Amino acid sequence: MAKTYQIAVIPGDGTGPEVIREGVKVLEAVSVKHGFKLELEEFDFGGERYKRTGETLPDSALNELSKKDAIYLGAIGHPDVKPGILEKGILLKLRFALDQYINLRPVKLYEGVYTPLKDKGPADIDFVVIRENTEGLYTGAGGFLKKGTPDEIAIQESINTRKGVERCLRYAFEYCRKRNKKKELLLCGKTNVLTYAFDLWERTFHELAQEYTDIKIQYAHVDATCMWMVKNPEWFDVIVTDNMFGDIITDLGAIIQGGMGIAAGANINPEGVSMFEPIGGSAPKYAGKNMINPLAAICAGQMMLETLGEERAAADVEQAVMKALKKDIKSLSAGKMGMSTSEVGDLIAKYV
Amino acid sequence: MAKTYQIAVIPGDGTGPEVIREGVKVLEAVSVKHGFKLELEEFDFGGERYKRTGETLPDSALNELSKKDAIYLGAIGHPDVKPGILEKGILLKLRFALDQYINLRPVKLYEGVYTPLKDKGPADIDFVVIRENTEGLYTGAGGFLKKGTPDEIAIQESINTRKGVERCLRYAFEYCRKRNKKKELLLCGKTNVLTYAFDLWERTFHELAQEYTDIKIQYAHVDATCMWMVKNPEWFDVIVTDNMFGDIITDLGAIIQGGMGIAAGANINPEGVSMFEPIGGSAPKYAGKNMINPLAAICAGQMMLETLGEERAAADVEQAVMKALKKDIKSLSAGKMGMSTSEVGDLIAKYV
Ligand SMILES: CC(C)[C@H](C(=O)O)[C@@H](O)C(=O)O
Ligand SMILES: CC(C)[C@H](C(=O)O)[C@@H](O)C(=O)O
Repeated sequence: MAKTYQIAVIPGDGTGPEVIREGVKVLEAVSVKHGFKLELEEFDFGGERYKRTGETLPDSALNELSKKDAIYLGAIGHPDVKPGILEKGILLKLRFALDQYINLRPVKLYEGVYTPLKDKGPADIDFVVIRENTEGLYTGAGGFLKKGTPDEIAIQESINTRKGVERCLRYAFEYCRKRNKKKELLLCGKTNVLTYAFDLWERTFHELAQEYTDIKIQYAHVDATCMWMVKNPEWFDVIVTDNMFGDIITDLGAIIQGGMGIAAGANINPEGVSMFEPIGGSAPKYAGKNMINPLAAICAGQMMLETLGEERAAADVEQAVMKALKKDIKSLSAGKMGMSTSEVGDLIAKYV
Repeated sequence: MAKTYQIAVIPGDGTGPEVIREGVKVLEAVSVKHGFKLELEEFDFGGERYKRTGETLPDSALNELSKKDAIYLGAIGHPDVKPGILEKGILLKLRFALDQYINLRPVKLYEGVYTPLKDKGPADIDFVVIRENTEGLYTGAGGFLKKGTPDEIAIQESINTRKGVERCLRYAFEYCRKRNKKKELLLCGKTNVLTYAFDLWERTFHELAQEYTDIKIQYAHVDATCMWMVKNPEWFDVIVTDNMFGDIITDLGAIIQGGMGIAAGANINPEGVSMFEPIGGSAPKYAGKNMINPLAAICAGQMMLETLGEERAAADVEQAVMKALKKDIKSLSAGKMGMSTSEVGDLIAKYV
C-alpha cells in the first residue's frame, strides 16, 4: 500500500498561494513517480483572515497542525497589517509552538544562476546555515520603562538555555557529519561582546566537540562571518548560530545564491512536525500576476520530501530545478524568467 | 600663532604601531602644509601591557585622555589574551567612558580598488553608516542562571534609552542634511521581532522626522539591509542603526568598499573627545614585517582632521589616498600592495 503523508498547506498572503500552487504541482508529480501519496489540507491563516476576523493562529489550529506530517507554507505578510502582528502571530508562533528548533538554510549556487559576487561560481558557494529557531532575541522577552517619556528605556532580552543551545549544536554536528563535505563546523557568534549568551554557546560547542572528534570546529564573530560570506564563501561548510545572527546571515546567504527567487528554508523539529517555506516575503505587488518565481517554494517542497524520508524524490526535484535553471530560466527575478509562474511549475513537474 | 591639537596616540597591538606610524607621518606632513600643530602623546594600552601588568585601561588614564582633542588608535587584540578582555577593557571602555555615542563609518569605493561585487563601481558604493555606540547589546547587561548545569540560562540584554536613541538619530538627521547627497536616511532595525527596542527607535525616528522635513525617511529590516548592501548598494545614502546591527553592517560595508585595508571609523562624542581607528584587527601574523596596509589608519587620520575642523587638510589627505589608489597601489592586501607599509606612508605624505 502506498505511503501517505498528511500535509498542512498554508498558502498565506500575496504571492504565497501562487508559488505554493506550483510547489504542490511538482510534489504531486514526483509522488506519482515514486509511489507515495500526499493528503493536503489547506489552512487560510494570513493577513486576509486577520483583517476579517482579528485572528492570527487559533490554538485549535495548532492542535490540528501538530498532527500532520509536515507543513508547507507560502508567505506571511500583508501591506495593510502593522509589521510584527502576522510575523509574531503566525510564523514565529508556529516555530515556537511546534518547537521547530532548527532553521535549516542551504546556501547553494546552481549553475546558470546569477550571483552578485565577482569571481565566484557554483563550486565556491555551497554551504549550509543552521540557525537556532526558538530562543535568543526571538523569545519576545523585554519591555518598556517610562514609555513615552524622555526617560524611556526599552529592553530586549536574548534568552539562551543550555538545553536549547545544546540540541541545536548537536543537530549541527550530526548534520555536518552526515553532509560529509569538509566536516568543518563553524560557530558564528560574538563572544567578545555578548559575553553571557555566547559564552554558553561556546562552552557547549567545545563540550560537544569532544564527542565529534571527526568534525573540525571553528569560530568566527558574526561581523567577520558576513565579510567572508561575500569575500570567501568557499571557506564555509556548515555554520551554526543563534536566532538573530542566523536571520541576518541566512538572508545574506540567500542573496549570494541568487536571491529570494531560489532560497528555501526548513523549520525543523526532528521529533515533531516541521515546516517548509520559501524565505522571500509575500511580494504583494506581484500578487495575482503569474509573474513571481516559484522555484523557492519548489525547493522548500524538496526539503520537505528530504525530511519526510523521500530522499530519492527530493533528489529528482533538485535535478529538475537544476536542469531548468541551466537550460530554460532566464533570470530568477519576478517577470524576467522568460516564462510565467505556472509555466515554471509545469516545466519542473515535467522534468521530475 | 599656529593652532595646536593635543592628540593621544594608542598604537596598540600587532600591526597597530606600524600603521599608526604611517598615519602620523601623513598627519605631520599635512599639518605643516596647513599651518597647524599636533602635539602627540603616546599611551601603551594593549595586550602587551595587559600581559605585563594585568591592567587594561586605568581610570587615571581615562582622565588624561578626556583632556585631549582627539584619540588616534591603532588596533587592540592579542593572540595570547582571551577574546573579550582587551575589547571590553580598552576599546569598548573608551567608547563608553568618553561617551562616544556615534560610530561613523563611510563606505566608499575609491577608483582602482577591488570590490567583490559584480557590476558595481565607485558611483554605486558611496554611503555612510551611523551606528549607535554606547547602548544596545553592548552595555554588557545580562547574566547566567544555574551556570554549568543542564538547566543553565544565559541572558544578554539590549538596553536602549530614549536619550541615547534620540541623540544618535538627531546626529544622523543632521549628518544626512549636511552630506546633502540624496537626503535619504534609512533606519535599519528589526521592528517585527525586536518589538521593544526597535519600537523605541522607530517612534523616535518618526518624531524627529517632523523636524527634518527636507530628509526622506526610510526603514529596512537588518536582514534586508544586508541583502541590499550586496545587491543594490547604490540605494543607500545614510543608514542609522543600533550598536549590534551597526557592528555587522559596517563590516559588510568594509568588505564591499575593498576590505580592512581601507576601512576607517570614528567614535564620536560631538561634545567631547572622539577617537579614530582603522577598523581592521591587529593582524598579529603581519606584525613587524612592514607588509600591512596603512591606508585605513591614514583614512582614520583624515576623519580626525575633519572632526577637528581641519576640513581642507582632511580633503588633501583623501585626494592623496585617491591618487595613490588610482596610480600606484596594486592591491589593498597585506604584502600585495607593490610596496611596503612605510613606502605607502611616504607616498601619501608626498602627495598631500
Ligand atoms: C518574517 C520574520 C519574522 C522572519 C524572521 O526574522 O525569522 C524572516 O526574516 C525569516 O528569516 O524567516
Ligand atoms: C572589537 C569589537 C569589540 C568591535 C565591536 O564589536 O564594536 C569591532 O568589531 C568594531 O566594530 O569596532
